[in-house]
Amino acid sequence: MARRTPEPPISWLMQAALTRPRLISLAAGFTDNPSLPVAETRAVLNQVLRSPKTGRPALQYGSTAGDPVLRRLTAEHLKNLDWGGTPCRRPRFQEQQHAVPLGIYSPERLLVTSGSQQLLYMTAEALCDEGDIVLVEDPTYFVYLSILQSRGLRARGVRLERDGLDLAHLEKILTSLKRSGELRRVKLLYIVSYFQNPAGVTTSFDKKRGMLKWLKQFERAAGHPIYLLEDAAYRELSFSGRADPALRDLDARQRVPTIPPSALAVPGAAERVIYAGTFTKPFATGARVGYGLLPKLLFTATKHIKGNHDFGTANLLQQLFARAVASGAHDKQVARLQKRYAQKAAVMKQAIEKYFPSSVEWWEPSGGLYFWARLPKNVFTGVKSKVFQAALKHDVLYVPGELCYADDPTRRKPDHEMRISFGNASETDIREGIKRLGRVLEKFVRV
Amino acid sequence: MARRTPEPPISWLMQAALTRPRLISLAAGFTDNPSLPVAETRAVLNQVLRSPKTGRPALQYGSTAGDPVLRRLTAEHLKNLDWGGTPCRRPRFQEQQHAVPLGIYSPERLLVTSGSQQLLYMTAEALCDEGDIVLVEDPTYFVYLSILQSRGLRARGVRLERDGLDLAHLEKILTSLKRSGELRRVKLLYIVSYFQNPAGVTTSFDKKRGMLKWLKQFERAAGHPIYLLEDAAYRELSFSGRADPALRDLDARQRVPTIPPSALAVPGAAERVIYAGTFTKPFATGARVGYGLLPKLLFTATKHIKGNHDFGTANLLQQLFARAVASGAHDKQVARLQKRYAQKAAVMKQAIEKYFPSSVEWWEPSGGLYFWARLPKNVFTGVKSKVFQAALKHDVLYVPGELCYADDPTRRKPDHEMRISFGNASETDIREGIKRLGRVLEKFVRV
Repeated sequence: MARRTPEPPISWLMQAALTRPRLISLAAGFTDNPSLPVAETRAVLNQVLRSPKTGRPALQYGSTAGDPVLRRLTAEHLKNLDWGGTPCRRPRFQEQQHAVPLGIYSPERLLVTSGSQQLLYMTAEALCDEGDIVLVEDPTYFVYLSILQSRGLRARGVRLERDGLDLAHLEKILTSLKRSGELRRVKLLYIVSYFQNPAGVTTSFDKKRGMLKWLKQFERAAGHPIYLLEDAAYRELSFSGRADPALRDLDARQRVPTIPPSALAVPGAAERVIYAGTFTKPFATGARVGYGLLPKLLFTATKHIKGNHDFGTANLLQQLFARAVASGAHDKQVARLQKRYAQKAAVMKQAIEKYFPSSVEWWEPSGGLYFWARLPKNVFTGVKSKVFQAALKHDVLYVPGELCYADDPTRRKPDHEMRISFGNASETDIREGIKRLGRVLEKFVRV
Repeated sequence: MARRTPEPPISWLMQAALTRPRLISLAAGFTDNPSLPVAETRAVLNQVLRSPKTGRPALQYGSTAGDPVLRRLTAEHLKNLDWGGTPCRRPRFQEQQHAVPLGIYSPERLLVTSGSQQLLYMTAEALCDEGDIVLVEDPTYFVYLSILQSRGLRARGVRLERDGLDLAHLEKILTSLKRSGELRRVKLLYIVSYFQNPAGVTTSFDKKRGMLKWLKQFERAAGHPIYLLEDAAYRELSFSGRADPALRDLDARQRVPTIPPSALAVPGAAERVIYAGTFTKPFATGARVGYGLLPKLLFTATKHIKGNHDFGTANLLQQLFARAVASGAHDKQVARLQKRYAQKAAVMKQAIEKYFPSSVEWWEPSGGLYFWARLPKNVFTGVKSKVFQAALKHDVLYVPGELCYADDPTRRKPDHEMRISFGNASETDIREGIKRLGRVLEKFVRV
């Protein structure tokens, strides 16, 4: 694996930032510094460590699956996100009259991990042999692509539309893999379902249902389950700042942005959906606790694998989050961050409108950390491109779109896009960074 | 991997503990509860989080390799352990007059991990393909064996003597692997070098030198480097309570237990020794931070792999340890634990002397958490054995020796030993547990 795991391109980008003091990085996925909850974290940790009785368990090994209280609270959190706090108000998407399948939100299926990243890694380990195929969005989260490359896995990219991946393209790919006899190598479909990294797209509930339908349909030919891995790392970071996204489907006419439920809410999801979430991004990235809700068999296998990785995420961090979630400190911080990122996104949007040439298309996100911009197809944005080099010279950094596309031999890798993050930069730097980038683009793109 | 990763035997043992309230577990590798540094951890975290200036960096993502300050302090800590604080007082083992190779203790080669367990896992990933062979001690750390099994790796067990593995046996195994053409599959030798888990053995410096000599000698036939992975997880937990173990070689005549330097101190170790250490066991197991000092090429590859696992261990925990090490809080806790474990080991020794039949051989450790007992060869101790079942019935639990032996087709797996831990149980429970175990043994072992 050492030979198959080169330096991740993003760390090269980070290095570049260090050597140019004036550089404004719109590349990093780092979160907003001033809103990090220092005082809140301190208060919660003081509660945990105020006495030997509560402190000792936090400083002792825990179990591999995670702290029981945190597992229960997290499962409840997910249930509330999908179905809302008030069970009588059923969301619109639930057409059928069957009972709400709440058993899927069981703490018994919930695994606490070191960031959701570790869950992505371990599910790839659990399910895939070298040479297996993983379906991903085109574009997708580039560190997931590093996992695939490092593990000797192949990828097929499914076109991304404004509301999630193109179902017709998914079907086409599955059909062609069936024809070529490679369907048995397909183990899972990976999507970033909320405010996607990198394109900012949120997948509609209908599309989630559609994906599961198509995967199911090809399982017989595959000879095994094909899982849907839903990476919901940005789910809590919606700009609307409302606590109960599931109910928003009801409010569509009120023009509130709709945040659909997760794929866990699709009937029959219990044995096919792997949900990856995190407490890290919406609270503090320095306290890395993520989680997965997994089909029972896969939960057990992944827990065993985690036993070999680290036999459990640091208990102290788990107790921090168990208390922060229970006390409401976590929700308060989420609400604060939602407003903060909404504001920063608005600043970036204004700047883009002002400084980018009109021929540059861009998608405005309704949450998360990223804008996704598309240049004309003949203007390249990759690391070696004139645009990237000029941007670096003007001390502004973005993530080249090409890094977000899988090595998929069946299509050419697009190289005319950029991921632009407003997560870490200050408002002043966002304005100045976009201004610099706009000047660069003006040289290469006809207005 | 899901299919190759069954439930670890130890978690079954832990489960058993939960269902029998009177049960005394001498099986768990948990550390001593009453001496967990609750107040100290609280004080250090309050320092870290007392202001946004120090608090924010602790709550933000760090770099994949780890916090620069912690890396520097850790590298210095290792240098001090191996060479002592006073460079003019050269330890006896250094026969040659060449300069002390202190460059090996460079922060640039130091990777911070989630417990040393994660380092063990990632080096196996970096170096080994499915079917490769890892040489291990007979017996060895059973979770390492789980890693090998899960990753489809094979193991060869090298006999363990009172001062480390049997070098003649190591040579014999390497020779036989060369003859069978399998030497090219051998990637590393794994040893637990201080107060070994499970047998309590400390490897002498001469043996470390010997191992490296033999590995080197067979490298040409292997066609690649064969690494020595030195797992020093228990190194700091010596009973002598002295801060500067490296200098003890000088004091051998004063009958102070000798703690040899690590294999890093062998000339030429820089490109062959992987050192795995941890802050977890000597401080607080709930704050899981470990580290590795690796040959440069392997450092880089393992760092990239860690990028895919979790792109960095939780920064908050790293800042906790950076401050605890710098302030001396860490050393104080280590000194406290050393005394505490020495006391508990003495209690266990007394109880064993009093209650165990004289035909049971046992090794007294000079550090760590474990006694290792040998029954006559015809008395089995495995999970299904009469001894184990009787012990469970009498509410006392040990780790069956067979779990600590690799699946090695070239020898029969010994099944007449037990690992008995004094780490977690109270002194009262240690006495009572050994008493119960003694009664069981009396039934099955001729006195």
